[in-house]
Amino acid sequence: MPEKLKEYTEIINQYIAAIDLKRNPSELYMPVQYCLGEGGKRVRPLMALLACNMFDGEIDNILSPAVGMEIFHNFTLMHDDIMDEAPLRRGKPSVFKKWNSNTAILSGDVMFAMAIEQIGKTPVRYLKPVLDLFNKTVIEVCEGQQFDMNFEILDKVTEESYINMIRLKTAVLPAACLKAGAIVAGASEKEAQLIYDFGENVGIAFQIKDDWLDIFGDEETFGKKSGGDIIANKKTWLYIKAFEMANESQLRDLRNAFTNRIFNPDEKISMVKNVYLQLKLDRLALEKMEDFNKKAFGYLDKISVAEKKKKLLRELAQNLIERKI
Amino acid sequence: MPEKLKEYTEIINQYIAAIDLKRNPSELYMPVQYCLGEGGKRVRPLMALLACNMFDGEIDNILSPAVGMEIFHNFTLMHDDIMDEAPLRRGKPSVFKKWNSNTAILSGDVMFAMAIEQIGKTPVRYLKPVLDLFNKTVIEVCEGQQFDMNFEILDKVTEESYINMIRLKTAVLPAACLKAGAIVAGASEKEAQLIYDFGENVGIAFQIKDDWLDIFGDEETFGKKSGGDIIANKKTWLYIKAFEMANESQLRDLRNAFTNRIFNPDEKISMVKNVYLQLKLDRLALEKMEDFNKKAFGYLDKISVAEKKKKLLRELAQNLIERKI
Repeated sequence: MPEKLKEYTEIINQYIAAIDLKRNPSELYMPVQYCLGEGGKRVRPLMALLACNMFDGEIDNILSPAVGMEIFHNFTLMHDDIMDEAPLRRGKPSVFKKWNSNTAILSGDVMFAMAIEQIGKTPVRYLKPVLDLFNKTVIEVCEGQQFDMNFEILDKVTEESYINMIRLKTAVLPAACLKAGAIVAGASEKEAQLIYDFGENVGIAFQIKDDWLDIFGDEETFGKKSGGDIIANKKTWLYIKAFEMANESQLRDLRNAFTNRIFNPDEKISMVKNVYLQLKLDRLALEKMEDFNKKAFGYLDKISVAEKKKKLLRELAQNLIERKI
Repeated sequence: MPEKLKEYTEIINQYIAAIDLKRNPSELYMPVQYCLGEGGKRVRPLMALLACNMFDGEIDNILSPAVGMEIFHNFTLMHDDIMDEAPLRRGKPSVFKKWNSNTAILSGDVMFAMAIEQIGKTPVRYLKPVLDLFNKTVIEVCEGQQFDMNFEILDKVTEESYINMIRLKTAVLPAACLKAGAIVAGASEKEAQLIYDFGENVGIAFQIKDDWLDIFGDEETFGKKSGGDIIANKKTWLYIKAFEMANESQLRDLRNAFTNRIFNPDEKISMVKNVYLQLKLDRLALEKMEDFNKKAFGYLDKISVAEKKKKLLRELAQNLIERKI
């Protein structure tokens, strides 16, 4: 991460480290500490700080809502891991694996409460718009998770509904962080909306890249085992487009693989990957990502602040999409 | 319920009925509708409205935060039922039984979000104090639930820590509802605190009565099967005091019963109930309840508004403790 971005991340980490989590009952707060403590890249609060800075706001005004959004994000991870039965999170056992499901439910709930507590510390003249934005966003994130769960049992998912799902599940939160930064910096509603739209499109691009990396990424660089989405029959952008574009014989291969008639995981991955490559989905996915990326930067371009003010945000978004962060 | 209280409940029910829950994804909102729809006595929002009224506030100013508190309460029930594996709620299958645990987690989360959404509709000049009160309260409620879960595996629980647990888990939410009513009516901090203290003590009295009813209540009147707490080895006020006061032979009976060396449920209940009666715990529990009750009304007495203004709140609290509601 570039030096300047690191400085902002440090400010966020210091703020988070100062939150008292050595509280009673320790059974409730230890998992919170475990989850919030380290390993998070703090991308969302970083976006909030950078947006605030871009509009010449005071960093002190955005710190608590930014951290509130980060705590909320970590809460969603804690609950999602229960629902997805995910054993690992950031290379460590997930809370529900390390403790149990009840602990992950209740410690998650208290994190949600702690998130609102931080939102509540927004300077009072910005409290109402920031709280409204937060509320709209958390409801959308829940809706996104539900759509994602629905997709598991749906036969057919359209590209449009997939994009809408990742928008809700992944993209609206960073978008809201950016907008919160704009709000507390006193930006106009129009400018605040532009930075929101920028974030939403960066978020969608990021998720499509994430789908791409799972199968075409370098396992050593990205730490995840390649093909996890295929093993889990996850309806990613690649999956959806493959079924849409496949010819008879490719369809047969996809169906054989995804209905688990192929039992060997490596064989399953290679069978699906082959079809993806035949359909040039590796290239098409990156083009799709680039579309959203361009759209995102189009919104950023429209914001009337000096170009040098946008530099860090551009850098962060570029790093995110190139997954250097 | 007295006529006038019914009118207020009707206002609350109408407000709740007007919340749009026919939203997508329906898998997320149907359990919310199921849980919020009917059967709730709306005691907490009723308290908020009555307190607001007592301090000559506008009912319109308290409706949304009052309903926010009610939605939050229902959220806690949805998550608690997962943790406690409770199959029934208000005589119907609990959400996690009717659907599944993941549904109850996520629909619960969106209810929490909807609760804050309603809090966010508090008139802006009261938003900050009401939100701060809400945040403090929801964190305490989570702590109370954790203490309750801790008690399950603790050998010894003191009366003091039990009272603190029910204060957090049960009493602070009605107290906060009352205080929110006072805040939006523009009451002084001192008066708002008095009504909070009233509510907290009513809440504790109510819970001790609840413990009492489980074993000494009339099954037909109260709908619950007598002795459920005994079957579940729940560390209620009666349980804790019994172990504190029992002689050698009574201790032996309690230990035999609670370590499940007695397998027949009716035999287990009658064995424990016998010890409770020998120790006069049926009477002592009601006295304890009465202590908190008196303390509660002491706070109410100190509030300097005309006695007739307090009438409905007195009526509600009395009904609650006598469990006519």
